[in-house]
Amino acid sequence: MTRRTSPARAGSRATRALREATCAANIELFTRGLARFTFGNASGVDRERGLIVIKPSGVPYDRLTPAQMVVTDLEGRVVEGTLRPSSDLATHAALFRAFPRIGGVAHTHSRFATAFAQARRAIPCLGTTHADYFHGAVPVTRPLSARAIASDYELNTGRAIVARFRQLDPMAIPAVLVAHHAPFTWGATVEAAVDHAAYLEEVALMAWHTLALAPGARPIARSLLDKHYLRKHGARATYGQRPGA
Amino acid sequence: MTRRTSPARAGSRATRALREATCAANIELFTRGLARFTFGNASGVDRERGLIVIKPSGVPYDRLTPAQMVVTDLEGRVVEGTLRPSSDLATHAALFRAFPRIGGVAHTHSRFATAFAQARRAIPCLGTTHADYFHGAVPVTRPLSARAIASDYELNTGRAIVARFRQLDPMAIPAVLVAHHAPFTWGATVEAAVDHAAYLEEVALMAWHTLALAPGARPIARSLLDKHYLRKHGARATYGQRPGA
Amino acid sequence: MTRRTSPARAGSRATRALREATCAANIELFTRGLARFTFGNASGVDRERGLIVIKPSGVPYDRLTPAQMVVTDLEGRVVEGTLRPSSDLATHAALFRAFPRIGGVAHTHSRFATAFAQARRAIPCLGTTHADYFHGAVPVTRPLSARAIASDYELNTGRAIVARFRQLDPMAIPAVLVAHHAPFTWGATVEAAVDHAAYLEEVALMAWHTLALAPGARPIARSLLDKHYLRKHGARATYGQRPGA
Amino acid sequence: MTRRTSPARAGSRATRALREATCAANIELFTRGLARFTFGNASGVDRERGLIVIKPSGVPYDRLTPAQMVVTDLEGRVVEGTLRPSSDLATHAALFRAFPRIGGVAHTHSRFATAFAQARRAIPCLGTTHADYFHGAVPVTRPLSARAIASDYELNTGRAIVARFRQLDPMAIPAVLVAHHAPFTWGATVEAAVDHAAYLEEVALMAWHTLALAPGARPIARSLLDKHYLRKHGARATYGQRPGA
Repeated sequence: MTRRTSPARAGSRATRALREATCAANIELFTRGLARFTFGNASGVDRERGLIVIKPSGVPYDRLTPAQMVVTDLEGRVVEGTLRPSSDLATHAALFRAFPRIGGVAHTHSRFATAFAQARRAIPCLGTTHADYFHGAVPVTRPLSARAIASDYELNTGRAIVARFRQLDPMAIPAVLVAHHAPFTWGATVEAAVDHAAYLEEVALMAWHTLALAPGARPIARSLLDKHYLRKHGARATYGQRPGA
Repeated sequence: MTRRTSPARAGSRATRALREATCAANIELFTRGLARFTFGNASGVDRERGLIVIKPSGVPYDRLTPAQMVVTDLEGRVVEGTLRPSSDLATHAALFRAFPRIGGVAHTHSRFATAFAQARRAIPCLGTTHADYFHGAVPVTRPLSARAIASDYELNTGRAIVARFRQLDPMAIPAVLVAHHAPFTWGATVEAAVDHAAYLEEVALMAWHTLALAPGARPIARSLLDKHYLRKHGARATYGQRPGA
Repeated sequence: MTRRTSPARAGSRATRALREATCAANIELFTRGLARFTFGNASGVDRERGLIVIKPSGVPYDRLTPAQMVVTDLEGRVVEGTLRPSSDLATHAALFRAFPRIGGVAHTHSRFATAFAQARRAIPCLGTTHADYFHGAVPVTRPLSARAIASDYELNTGRAIVARFRQLDPMAIPAVLVAHHAPFTWGATVEAAVDHAAYLEEVALMAWHTLALAPGARPIARSLLDKHYLRKHGARATYGQRPGA
Repeated sequence: MTRRTSPARAGSRATRALREATCAANIELFTRGLARFTFGNASGVDRERGLIVIKPSGVPYDRLTPAQMVVTDLEGRVVEGTLRPSSDLATHAALFRAFPRIGGVAHTHSRFATAFAQARRAIPCLGTTHADYFHGAVPVTRPLSARAIASDYELNTGRAIVARFRQLDPMAIPAVLVAHHAPFTWGATVEAAVDHAAYLEEVALMAWHTLALAPGARPIARSLLDKHYLRKHGARATYGQRPGA
């Protein structure tokens, strides 16, 4: 049995744990109903080694294996794996480079978040469910120019997201709507990125139904937003169990 | 095997039945689709002993056990259990103190009831399905002031509910929408509180779809409301089977 | 073992087949998602013997047995069974008396049909799915007066349905929306009544979504309505397989 | 065992593979939730032999077998099978004759696509999910005249579709909405036709929710439409894995 050389090597020991976590996260996008068909992909990053692990392009979720995951450097150059990476790789990589504290990215076409993205409307914070997870409105990017679409489209999508967060904290609002497209979410790990995709969809669904009932509904007060967000996040959080409890 | 002392004691024999019922009710919130993620919690009260049993904070529903339930007095002080109680405990306790006939409280972020709460709209009684369970509109609380949010938020949420029911019978309308937040329901037992959460969501869904079709829809006549409500509730109820039948 | 006398006799041999069919039809209301909780009931009629078989009141669907079915005469007087009949019995009986060709009746609170009933809007025939099963709009009854609600409410509900069909053929439009309440459907058998409840809900769902998209949508042309309805029903039907094929 | 002669012969060896594929495709319409009751049918074509294989009329999906499939020539004359073909056969046959590159056709009454068809609104391309599968708006046919409904209705339905595509490429937009009726989709194979029915429904659902949120939403830019469609289709596609990879 000969050992194939990089980039064709199908998964080194060093990336094994991250390939397993990323494979599981991609499957979860599917089983939680966030991604249908082959829409959607999740990736994780190994900051020490400077490696991204991402889903291969167009492979159905029910056949994914950790060995199929594609490993690239932070510029998106494949260093392990025999399959093509997800076509959205350059977007993921741009987020990993710009947001140094994130460990995972997820992209779905989940239904209600996508409706907001297609309508080019931010998801306003209309209630405490939203405030429990996102510390403010989930923003929408500016549409890309025809030129930015024509070349390096996926990279430019990433740049549009980063530009939108110039004055926002990506750890406090771990989600964005790409105009005319769909959401991206992220988090400290690839599992957290997927959880945020699920929370985002639930929050989008509630906002959609609220706006249908009250088209002029206003965002909740800052004090209520802070109360709920900070009850769950940060040094003074009181929600959940104490570490080790 | 040493016996731990209060408040760290993990469940006495005296609270066993109520811990089991409350644990089962919390799990049912999840399996009936009323609570997702770790949103939502249910509690029961032992009026003789003056004890509340409630879900621990942030523990996933699929891992809940009766031993994990937290037991507090009616002021919300933990007397049994090693985990932190639900962060909404002070709201539950306020309801148990103010509404002497209730034996259980449930809190969910169920989708349609939450849309009404976020829109700050009461759920009008638009049909007999509503009238079968709620003897009038399900009201919405007044929003809390910034001060009431800043300190004792959960207690003040309970106070806002109690204030809203000053002229309403909580046994005839066993549900409320907390403005910008989500519903609370209650009943003679914790099981009844969960049942009311389920009926509320179904009624909210129907009202939402009715209002989309007929934005100016008016509540049903008092005679029809009384007919259906009293057919199922009170001394002259004719619905269901006679006790012992 | 003594044999109880009528009306307490729990199911004679003569009504066995109809009790089995009616029990199965009630269970199907539940498993097909048309009835939730204990909303909804189905009944069948034995025209030769002048007997109605109906669900007992308030018994959960997952515990129903043929022996629990209640047998009454066409005036709704119990002649077999030890449980109380469904509280809607008088409505079913009125339909069986007025519509001599029907063999079964179903009542549900299915979501979209109920939204139309609550909005007091007929379901217009907006497409061929509707025309395949209902030969025109599904009408809505006039609301009952306070007096008609106060006494003999369920009988008066039946009368309002019959009045609404004075100039309609109940075999060609086997469904109605009771204003502020919910739908009733019927058919040649109790199985057909349940099928019509399912078709009605699907058609109501489609009409609801169509009207949201095009509030001024007009009913389809008479020629298209006739084409689809008559393709499936009547002497010149061409849909499905020839009897015995 | 005597061998029955054509057209009563129940399935020759020559059509076996296509009967199996077509039977499986019809069942998939049902299991994927695209067709309910007995709405919907799929067909495949054998271009070499000039044969169409289609579902029999009115047979429930859960009982379909390959031997029940009906085989006709391109004019819709039955040459194999003992059951009546789907009543929509003439529409399928018209599409096979007019669109020489298609190998399969599917017809459903899927909910959101049908709502657009009933509202007589094309599905505009509002986002990249749409652009990934359909290279432009999914068009709606002109309604048929009373005369075209009265005779050769199903054939005239096919003609209306073909007329609508006079200036469109059916391989780039493999779907249509028949006014007041429901969608038809097609593809290189019967499996692809069913896949397109599923994509169409997802895209219709997203467009419906987007238009509810932003009634004046405009189609995406041509550059974005081309980018996404051509990323997945045609000679320069980069999505998915290289053949043989």
